[in-house]
Amino acid sequence: MRKTLSPAPQVRGPSDHEVRDQIVQAATAYFGLYGYEKTTVSDLAKAIGFSKAYIYKFFDSKQAIGEVICANRLSVIMAAVDAAVGTSGAAPERLRRMFKALVEAASELFFRDRKLWDIATTSATEMWPSARAYDQHMRQLITQIVREGRETGDFERKTPLDEAANAIYLVMRPYVNPLLLQHNLDGAAEATGQLSSLVLRSLAP
Amino acid sequence: MRKTLSPAPQVRGPSDHEVRDQIVQAATAYFGLYGYEKTTVSDLAKAIGFSKAYIYKFFDSKQAIGEVICANRLSVIMAAVDAAVGTSGAAPERLRRMFKALVEAASELFFRDRKLWDIATTSATEMWPSARAYDQHMRQLITQIVREGRETGDFERKTPLDEAANAIYLVMRPYVNPLLLQHNLDGAAEATGQLSSLVLRSLAP
Repeated sequence: MRKTLSPAPQVRGPSDHEVRDQIVQAATAYFGLYGYEKTTVSDLAKAIGFSKAYIYKFFDSKQAIGEVICANRLSVIMAAVDAAVGTSGAAPERLRRMFKALVEAASELFFRDRKLWDIATTSATEMWPSARAYDQHMRQLITQIVREGRETGDFERKTPLDEAANAIYLVMRPYVNPLLLQHNLDGAAEATGQLSSLVLRSLAP
Repeated sequence: MRKTLSPAPQVRGPSDHEVRDQIVQAATAYFGLYGYEKTTVSDLAKAIGFSKAYIYKFFDSKQAIGEVICANRLSVIMAAVDAAVGTSGAAPERLRRMFKALVEAASELFFRDRKLWDIATTSATEMWPSARAYDQHMRQLITQIVREGRETGDFERKTPLDEAANAIYLVMRPYVNPLLLQHNLDGAAEATGQLSSLVLRSLAP
């Protein structure tokens, strides 16, 4: 999983992708076991058998490593959502699939790697570039589906596009943002089904 | 502010309302200064000049005191929301006013007494009776407004009433629940305006 989102985190020293990937992979495993917030680059260096100085040749802070891990995970969620939405099918159905896939992918990340979740919540709290890009991606996807639904006559056209798309984003936000999602996991599947239906009623021509 | 929500918290010993009120008032001030989570009944007793044993004659735990404080605060929010909704006016406007008043009253509680907020979040996390009653009140109010809007022809009648009301509650929930609201305060006024409009579009006949 070498793909990262732009803008890329700050990288220092030789652009040796192999070593960088090695550090990111080891850090993912390490933070997955011991958490991100409570560990230091020294702890990480010791655990993976690199010197701290060597790690700093590639990443200028713990956050820079966390940012790559976070970007990798969020790109997995975005890919799952994009795949679920697809390019075929009617806009209402695609909007419903988007919401469902988003909650499923994010919940899976939460349940499978609870210790990595604190990177995602830190990222969302501090609005790291990866969190901003993820947020932006979801907004764009909503706008695109609403626009297409208007073109095919599936959705109403009276409300300004920006307002309609932003309001839908606000409905989905508690399930997009990791800080909020952690309090929304109980019954999330049923809730998102009902919210999708409400959103689709609001879009009816 | 002597009114509490039913079901009442567990009370021990003589039902001496004056002493109970005195303890609750002193505890509200004390928790307001030092927070709820990190203080003990011993700290509180020392600060207000009562013996711990005397406090335990009236409340069987710190939570029982916190629960009365929380119930008092939530009843203030509910009263503000009920007053804003009123009984006159068209259902769409009353729904909009409900959402606005809810966010304003809860945000004010948050900004004015940040230290008391941790009682509200603890109450929401552990679903104390006061938190459940508050949640239930908001759900009932939504159902009532939707029902009245259906009777006057302002709202559509195809969707089952329960489903429509529950989906609206889910839209409002991030602004009702203190755990979620704390992450939603930025831009809450604009967000709730847009969400009200979306909800009203979803209710259009």
